[in-house]
Amino acid sequence: MKILKGNIIFTENPEAFTTYPRGYVVVKDGKVEYVGSTLPQIYEGEPVEDFGENLIIPGLIDLHFHAPQYANIGLGLDKELLPWLTDYTFPEEAKYKDLAYAEGVYRQVARELWKNGTTRVVLLSTLHIEATKLLMDIFNESGLGAYIGKVNMDRNSPDILIETTEDSLRETEALLESYGNKYERVKPILTPRFVPTCTSELMHGLGKLAEKYQVPIQSHISENRGECSWVKELHPESSSYADVYRNHNLMTSRTVMAHCVHNTPDELEIFKENGVFAAHCPNANYNLSSGIMPVRAFMEAGIHVGLGTDVGAGNKVSISSVMASAMQGSKMKWLETEGALAPLSTPEAFYLGTKGGGAFFGKVGSFETGYEFDALVIDDSALCITPGRSLEERLQRFIYVGDDRHITHRYVSGDLISEPKLK
Amino acid sequence: MKILKGNIIFTENPEAFTTYPRGYVVVKDGKVEYVGSTLPQIYEGEPVEDFGENLIIPGLIDLHFHAPQYANIGLGLDKELLPWLTDYTFPEEAKYKDLAYAEGVYRQVARELWKNGTTRVVLLSTLHIEATKLLMDIFNESGLGAYIGKVNMDRNSPDILIETTEDSLRETEALLESYGNKYERVKPILTPRFVPTCTSELMHGLGKLAEKYQVPIQSHISENRGECSWVKELHPESSSYADVYRNHNLMTSRTVMAHCVHNTPDELEIFKENGVFAAHCPNANYNLSSGIMPVRAFMEAGIHVGLGTDVGAGNKVSISSVMASAMQGSKMKWLETEGALAPLSTPEAFYLGTKGGGAFFGKVGSFETGYEFDALVIDDSALCITPGRSLEERLQRFIYVGDDRHITHRYVSGDLISEPKLK
Repeated sequence: MKILKGNIIFTENPEAFTTYPRGYVVVKDGKVEYVGSTLPQIYEGEPVEDFGENLIIPGLIDLHFHAPQYANIGLGLDKELLPWLTDYTFPEEAKYKDLAYAEGVYRQVARELWKNGTTRVVLLSTLHIEATKLLMDIFNESGLGAYIGKVNMDRNSPDILIETTEDSLRETEALLESYGNKYERVKPILTPRFVPTCTSELMHGLGKLAEKYQVPIQSHISENRGECSWVKELHPESSSYADVYRNHNLMTSRTVMAHCVHNTPDELEIFKENGVFAAHCPNANYNLSSGIMPVRAFMEAGIHVGLGTDVGAGNKVSISSVMASAMQGSKMKWLETEGALAPLSTPEAFYLGTKGGGAFFGKVGSFETGYEFDALVIDDSALCITPGRSLEERLQRFIYVGDDRHITHRYVSGDLISEPKLK
Repeated sequence: MKILKGNIIFTENPEAFTTYPRGYVVVKDGKVEYVGSTLPQIYEGEPVEDFGENLIIPGLIDLHFHAPQYANIGLGLDKELLPWLTDYTFPEEAKYKDLAYAEGVYRQVARELWKNGTTRVVLLSTLHIEATKLLMDIFNESGLGAYIGKVNMDRNSPDILIETTEDSLRETEALLESYGNKYERVKPILTPRFVPTCTSELMHGLGKLAEKYQVPIQSHISENRGECSWVKELHPESSSYADVYRNHNLMTSRTVMAHCVHNTPDELEIFKENGVFAAHCPNANYNLSSGIMPVRAFMEAGIHVGLGTDVGAGNKVSISSVMASAMQGSKMKWLETEGALAPLSTPEAFYLGTKGGGAFFGKVGSFETGYEFDALVIDDSALCITPGRSLEERLQRFIYVGDDRHITHRYVSGDLISEPKLK
């Protein structure tokens, strides 16, 4: 059992923060057993770790991060999606058949996510099976929570980065067998790259694996207009991009789809009906000139939404800075739609980056009873320019102004996580 | 004389970077005397400071920063401009009649700007004359370059933050007399807050002072639609917001106007004809739901453009991060205008934040011969995830990913500037 004391702040729902100034959270077997302003008598005599005036907030959740693209972060952003993939991404990903190279970058990825307070992440690796296993080993060693996907791609890909349908399915199933239950916090996730690079046969095969092994799925949808037109050409038999995935049994309640910038109302219905998650990656969408996701429309439709950095198209590893970017974009969307789609408030953006995305991992992203105790301690004294700010204001300032320097402790399921080692 | 060696990169024009890998820059009397790949014979025997593989870039230029609003940075951003002014900004600014309070915040402002590599800044203080002098003293002590303006506001302002027309003009003139030539790098600038808070009499008076003392002018224009409508109501005799300023002789070749989100083509003509500078403050414009400035239209019209943080509406003090935000917004503008306004490239954004804004200070923001040697040394080794990147790529990554931790030295007019003291 662990008892922590501090300025506790989190979101049970998107509308408002829940705060317990100088409150207590009691953690048992890695889960929250109690949170509140006073410590119930039953816990008297137990040791209390007191974090003073520091904030205690849920760990940050990143629903979309390309591990190999971390090597390219901040580069090539004068291009749009499809040329950027060809010129920057595919050549980089081809290098990950070299395990020594992969280890160098992947250990930096774990360290950067740790540093920036991400406690759970949905990662894409490359199509290489050995490098994917290595990435899973590294994350298990780190103590962070992760779904990690070997990428599947068997068409419209360069010779240096393509696999046969048969190999792709066989290797993916072998990975599910060997790594499906190997680790507690690090699990495989099926990862058809996106419709243009996956044959119908491959997508059907992955749909069957998802059913057989009861595993989650991640992919991309409707990021860029050029990509959307291409999918329409490739699949004239489907009524929409989302319909293509649905027809291959890839739209499940354990699916997360990144981007969702250009989806139609019919596609939102498909998300809603199947319980699919949307990963909003604002920085990536601005950087590659893709557009602004209508997050409000997804939220109003009752669709699960979380945030993603989408490194390397996204230029920041920090989900708290992605919250600020999401708010900024939502305000431009509000103008663009002449008031139809309201801007995201600060608690809404915080909810998306904690409990919203956390739901993909189970009871994660909040301090309600029964939730995994994933948490960050924030020492924002360097941000307190003048005294007397409320907890809500202090958290707002951390989101807009703060960075990894203000995070002093990171917990996953109650365990204090130390800095991951580099190669 | 100073000779520096390193990976030199800057923009002479917006189209492309000029680079001298392991090159030399020779500084005499604070100005660049030579820059190039090899050291001319004439300098042989002179000591060379070798910065190894580090980058040497021009200092960053911030054309718009509200010093007192630094106390509110990152707060209240769920509001639009006019309610935000009433609820957050005006009550904070009213505190600056207290010099002890002002000193605490203003010293933090100097320190933050220094930390983030801003070597020259156009600052607004408040309407308080003594606090404005204090801010000028603090900046002179820091060694950074600054234009600093006592704010003028004599209508539509709260009782706690308003002055009479007569007091406003008298105190402003007294400041020009006492501080006009007091410091070398810190100078006064006339600062009518914006049309809604300045009577015609006040604006006319300031226009005359600008002429009499040959001093620069800063103000705000066309940030928010509500503000634009208000100006139209207040000045039905003028054809536009810019026309109001022009009619009061406030649109000069030494004027900088912040925001410029909603200007008409006729107003761009007024900018162009009078040589007025535009300060683009993307973060502030997103945060307060104002919109995206059509920067490309200003550039194509041949108008001087620089970047501003607009702290506190802007949430970042770093002009390099503002470059990234400007590029992101320009890509959304490109989509919004269906390709009419091309996105900003990386050299273009860098140009705006160095030489573009630097022109407001004279020959500043480049390493061409005769320019003031304002420079930063960037140790980006922590950002070099994999080896072998070009100087252009390394600078691009610093802009998108880096922060103050990667800046090791800051020069203004050839002087190495040390960390400003806090109170």
